[in-house]
Amino acid sequence: MKAVVVTDPPKASLDDADRLSACGLSTVHEACGRRGYLGPRMRPVWPGARIAGTAVTALCWPGDNWMIHVAVEQCGPGGTLVVATNSPCSDGLFGELLATSLGARGVRGVVLACGARDVAELQAMGFPAWSTAVSAQGSVKATLGSVNGPVVVEGQLVHPGDVIVADDGVVCVARADVPRAVTVSQARLEREERNRKRFQAGELGLDVYGMRGELQRLGLRYINHREWAAGEDV
Amino acid sequence: MKAVVVTDPPKASLDDADRLSACGLSTVHEACGRRGYLGPRMRPVWPGARIAGTAVTALCWPGDNWMIHVAVEQCGPGGTLVVATNSPCSDGLFGELLATSLGARGVRGVVLACGARDVAELQAMGFPAWSTAVSAQGSVKATLGSVNGPVVVEGQLVHPGDVIVADDGVVCVARADVPRAVTVSQARLEREERNRKRFQAGELGLDVYGMRGELQRLGLRYINHREWAAGEDV
Amino acid sequence: MKAVVVTDPPKASLDDADRLSACGLSTVHEACGRRGYLGPRMRPVWPGARIAGTAVTALCWPGDNWMIHVAVEQCGPGGTLVVATNSPCSDGLFGELLATSLGARGVRGVVLACGARDVAELQAMGFPAWSTAVSAQGSVKATLGSVNGPVVVEGQLVHPGDVIVADDGVVCVARADVPRAVTVSQARLEREERNRKRFQAGELGLDVYGMRGELQRLGLRYINHREWAAGEDV
Amino acid sequence: MKAVVVTDPPKASLDDADRLSACGLSTVHEACGRRGYLGPRMRPVWPGARIAGTAVTALCWPGDNWMIHVAVEQCGPGGTLVVATNSPCSDGLFGELLATSLGARGVRGVVLACGARDVAELQAMGFPAWSTAVSAQGSVKATLGSVNGPVVVEGQLVHPGDVIVADDGVVCVARADVPRAVTVSQARLEREERNRKRFQAGELGLDVYGMRGELQRLGLRYINHREWAAGEDV
Amino acid sequence: MKAVVVTDPPKASLDDADRLSACGLSTVHEACGRRGYLGPRMRPVWPGARIAGTAVTALCWPGDNWMIHVAVEQCGPGGTLVVATNSPCSDGLFGELLATSLGARGVRGVVLACGARDVAELQAMGFPAWSTAVSAQGSVKATLGSVNGPVVVEGQLVHPGDVIVADDGVVCVARADVPRAVTVSQARLEREERNRKRFQAGELGLDVYGMRGELQRLGLRYINHREWAAGEDV
Amino acid sequence: MKAVVVTDPPKASLDDADRLSACGLSTVHEACGRRGYLGPRMRPVWPGARIAGTAVTALCWPGDNWMIHVAVEQCGPGGTLVVATNSPCSDGLFGELLATSLGARGVRGVVLACGARDVAELQAMGFPAWSTAVSAQGSVKATLGSVNGPVVVEGQLVHPGDVIVADDGVVCVARADVPRAVTVSQARLEREERNRKRFQAGELGLDVYGMRGELQRLGLRYINHREWAAGEDV
Repeated sequence: MKAVVVTDPPKASLDDADRLSACGLSTVHEACGRRGYLGPRMRPVWPGARIAGTAVTALCWPGDNWMIHVAVEQCGPGGTLVVATNSPCSDGLFGELLATSLGARGVRGVVLACGARDVAELQAMGFPAWSTAVSAQGSVKATLGSVNGPVVVEGQLVHPGDVIVADDGVVCVARADVPRAVTVSQARLEREERNRKRFQAGELGLDVYGMRGELQRLGLRYINHREWAAGEDV
Repeated sequence: MKAVVVTDPPKASLDDADRLSACGLSTVHEACGRRGYLGPRMRPVWPGARIAGTAVTALCWPGDNWMIHVAVEQCGPGGTLVVATNSPCSDGLFGELLATSLGARGVRGVVLACGARDVAELQAMGFPAWSTAVSAQGSVKATLGSVNGPVVVEGQLVHPGDVIVADDGVVCVARADVPRAVTVSQARLEREERNRKRFQAGELGLDVYGMRGELQRLGLRYINHREWAAGEDV
Repeated sequence: MKAVVVTDPPKASLDDADRLSACGLSTVHEACGRRGYLGPRMRPVWPGARIAGTAVTALCWPGDNWMIHVAVEQCGPGGTLVVATNSPCSDGLFGELLATSLGARGVRGVVLACGARDVAELQAMGFPAWSTAVSAQGSVKATLGSVNGPVVVEGQLVHPGDVIVADDGVVCVARADVPRAVTVSQARLEREERNRKRFQAGELGLDVYGMRGELQRLGLRYINHREWAAGEDV
Repeated sequence: MKAVVVTDPPKASLDDADRLSACGLSTVHEACGRRGYLGPRMRPVWPGARIAGTAVTALCWPGDNWMIHVAVEQCGPGGTLVVATNSPCSDGLFGELLATSLGARGVRGVVLACGARDVAELQAMGFPAWSTAVSAQGSVKATLGSVNGPVVVEGQLVHPGDVIVADDGVVCVARADVPRAVTVSQARLEREERNRKRFQAGELGLDVYGMRGELQRLGLRYINHREWAAGEDV
Repeated sequence: MKAVVVTDPPKASLDDADRLSACGLSTVHEACGRRGYLGPRMRPVWPGARIAGTAVTALCWPGDNWMIHVAVEQCGPGGTLVVATNSPCSDGLFGELLATSLGARGVRGVVLACGARDVAELQAMGFPAWSTAVSAQGSVKATLGSVNGPVVVEGQLVHPGDVIVADDGVVCVARADVPRAVTVSQARLEREERNRKRFQAGELGLDVYGMRGELQRLGLRYINHREWAAGEDV
Repeated sequence: MKAVVVTDPPKASLDDADRLSACGLSTVHEACGRRGYLGPRMRPVWPGARIAGTAVTALCWPGDNWMIHVAVEQCGPGGTLVVATNSPCSDGLFGELLATSLGARGVRGVVLACGARDVAELQAMGFPAWSTAVSAQGSVKATLGSVNGPVVVEGQLVHPGDVIVADDGVVCVARADVPRAVTVSQARLEREERNRKRFQAGELGLDVYGMRGELQRLGLRYINHREWAAGEDV
């Protein structure tokens, strides 16, 4: 882990980030070829938040949040702080004082591959946070790490300036892929809206998506329960 | 995993399902001899839902929700879709489009041994879901599975037509056991109501349940803290 | 596991417990030298509860809640019941009937190193509970344990009469340490309030805490992204 | 959980069990349509054992091994004891004294959805055991369970008399499916032996299994690294 | 976490430690009333080691092994180093260089509530180690902790000078309880030897332990499989 | 997940890979600034293997090993196949037939972020494998993935052509960093050998590493147990 702070990385467009957020997490994830999702362990610490922003990254030693303090200086309006640790850590490296500081700088939220503390205060402030744990366990400031290097968070590579889309969970869209992700997500959204109406009207996915032929080709069989129970399936 | 869809399985009475739901999860579970509980990992994706229905089962390949689309056609009013996977899977195999389709068919909810996506949308629609994960991870439609076969979900065997009772968690009551479960649950509910009043009046479980004699027979001793601290317990 | 109930243990002051609760979990934990936190698995079963009280402890066999019934008799106003099991257990050893009984005795809440059941009912009653699981799984009354002995809960030693502070999570403050914990927590709270105002005004933790010198001494370097991308970091 | 011991269940042929064991775990599992595998948590407590036998089942309360003592009486030559618990349990419900007793009755091994203790002694005795944990944690004899009922072990349904095949892990073959499983497994074994020779000679699976056409049809593309690095993949 | 090293704590007798080791882990654990077991996650890093010794304790910050270096100086012949961390940590805080140093001081082994590294080297040296993980992840030396204070390891309280008995797993016997544990363990060992012979001769635990009466009293029923299958059990 | 196979990626020197392997996992990991370790879940499936090689990467859909078959063609002498899955998967995607094929091509081993099957056969063949699970669970060939793209495995980014060093666990050294890693690892190895001799002679790490001054500066205190027990530490 190099002890380095990278300043002024290029960032994706905040307008594009907002366009992605409007499409929703699942739609963006599908539009990106089902890549970039930070997995089911990364969850909102309070319900209802929905943001998008550009990543500022920090890599901390476990049990040590010093680099978060360093990273705050690199954060500005529209930013989303993304915190990784060098080995697994559930300690509460982030709480309401750091949120106050980030909020004063126009930061939109934080994504923590560790614990968050002070959940009630974060919710009262309206500061959005996603984390892999909720923990009051405090941390030291003793070991250097890095800011704005590439980090791996819950199996996904995140670079500074990438777009972070977060509601139920978190998706990272690489900066270079953002414009195309916007286009594909918006097209997908329209298609989903058309399908939603067909589902509401009682149509089946089997027909909406034209699946029956392929299911039959691969050998799916239908059998009445009575015959099945009589062992005619053996 | 056989590629088969079993049609028209016999189902438990929906009236009985509603009677069980009115008794509540814990009471039904106790009335069934503490069997059928789908364990602490199966949790509501949004709080407050309380349903009962008859099971329609689907068995999917991990990362693949094709059989859910097939299962929708087998679902009708009062049904509850129960989804298992052939090996452990946390991916989001179910979201709001499928919920829209099930809702249009009168289905009461879904129980997923995998991930659910689109939590905010499911809550806004009022479509109840229980799952072992919340995940935006998308899935393919490539491998056949089965519908309305017996499946094991979180350690419990579920047959199509069994009653699913769900609030904090999920209990499955085998179709043949349902009438007796109703009788025993309702009797238990009345007894609990009587005991609740005694507890509210300050009576102790030790007396309400008559436990003191057996505790003494097995050797439970009482000792004052002062004597205990003086080592008289050694 | 000795089959013993220790009666009338000495207890910390309830006024001190209330003073600690007013300071909040994170502040108390820091004031105690970052000790006594029951870890991120111990979570409120419904959101928003905030209590402090003096511990009454129970040690149960897995799958068996008999000793909770015995412990109720040892609980009084201001008490907080703390339940440990002899080996890992996620079963729902505590539900709304026991909560009714504890509520009638003026108990402030329960901390369970096992499962809680009847979450909706507990929330409706306003009875606070923290647990490592939510589970409807029922239990037997067959094996003796102990009440008011020292227990280890999620890695922390808890004695009867210690102060339990609980909101997002749970901290245990040893009885002898309580007066000093109050003094240090309140001083810390004032200092945090001063810092909060500085953060709101846009000051950085790097300056508020005077970190820049030590970071430089240990070798933290700053590099512009352009230079970094050009490989000048190698 | 009913307190019942079912005596003299019908059993699969031990000769067939031996034939399956000779084919090996993976081959049998594939031959059964990839069903019946007890998952990656069920592992041998000492390396190198390989057995097959007919299941005798026991269902215990967590932390309680009483029903194992009851089950021993139902075990005879060629049997394999399969132990489930009513809720998750890692305690060491089985050790060398019980193994001595089972060994004296001609039992071939034990499959434990809980912990095993006395690993060195079991290995010295040559008594094979598979378990989900190794644990010295002792158990009580206080609560009834059942013997020779159907049990779910690590997601698979096991009936008494089914064939248990165990080496790296454990597969359960339902009694009715055993004859067909033998036929298909042995045919599969021969086919694998032919393929093994082709792989040893340097042939590729792509050709041995004729996969190239389908891969191309679905759109798999090949691109040289130089072109890929130049971004021609975008 | 106080930054303190406690020197010259009183220690249990090494002869008693050896007597306990000769009885084996399970027997000692039972003799202690099924207390003191460090659970199924604490496992030998190489198979076959069996030791007992008196505990020297160290409490480290996660990702930081500085206090192990401090603790080495407090270790002498017959000692067993027990390492806890302030919050969960799987990093490899201990490897072959530290083992070399401990070995030169006559230390018998190490018990790590974290990771061990250099497994092959530890085995080649014959230095016994138990841990909750095997990990090559390196650590810093930046934050103080304590040596020879009481620590909680995997749910058990360990004081310096307590006896550590380790083979399949680890049991801690409190110093004051050691003489009685020796007496009870040795008596238990003799009784087990007598029972082992009866089991080898084909007697059943049901008879050796006289269980049949109590099982019948509690209502255990026996039913032939044919009758059971005919539904006579309902 | 793009369906693409990247051919002929540049590779690190096999001689350098062998030099790193000779230094051992821990030394290489430290020499790389404690980066690149694939964590404690990635473990050898049989003990004693020690390899280094250049990575060939495959990204599979969960439950589907089709891309492994595609990747084999891209593997040659000195290669090490590294398999990731698009979402968590413990299924046995790799067994002895694939190992036979890789062995015939001069491949040195396999690193699996999923399960391995046929452990006994792999050990008998002497084909080294590291995995996050051992599982007999079979897989389908239905969904495309990629070969020789960058993949994240257990939190670490792996590119084709990087050096994989594996014994107790696995470290990935980025291709560009390999020459420097060799130099630093070898220098470190010599320093460790000098320190090892000092430890064998009874010197303490406190002195070998000159730690006493900094420990004192940060406030570490020593106190005799008698005084500590008398409460003079408060």
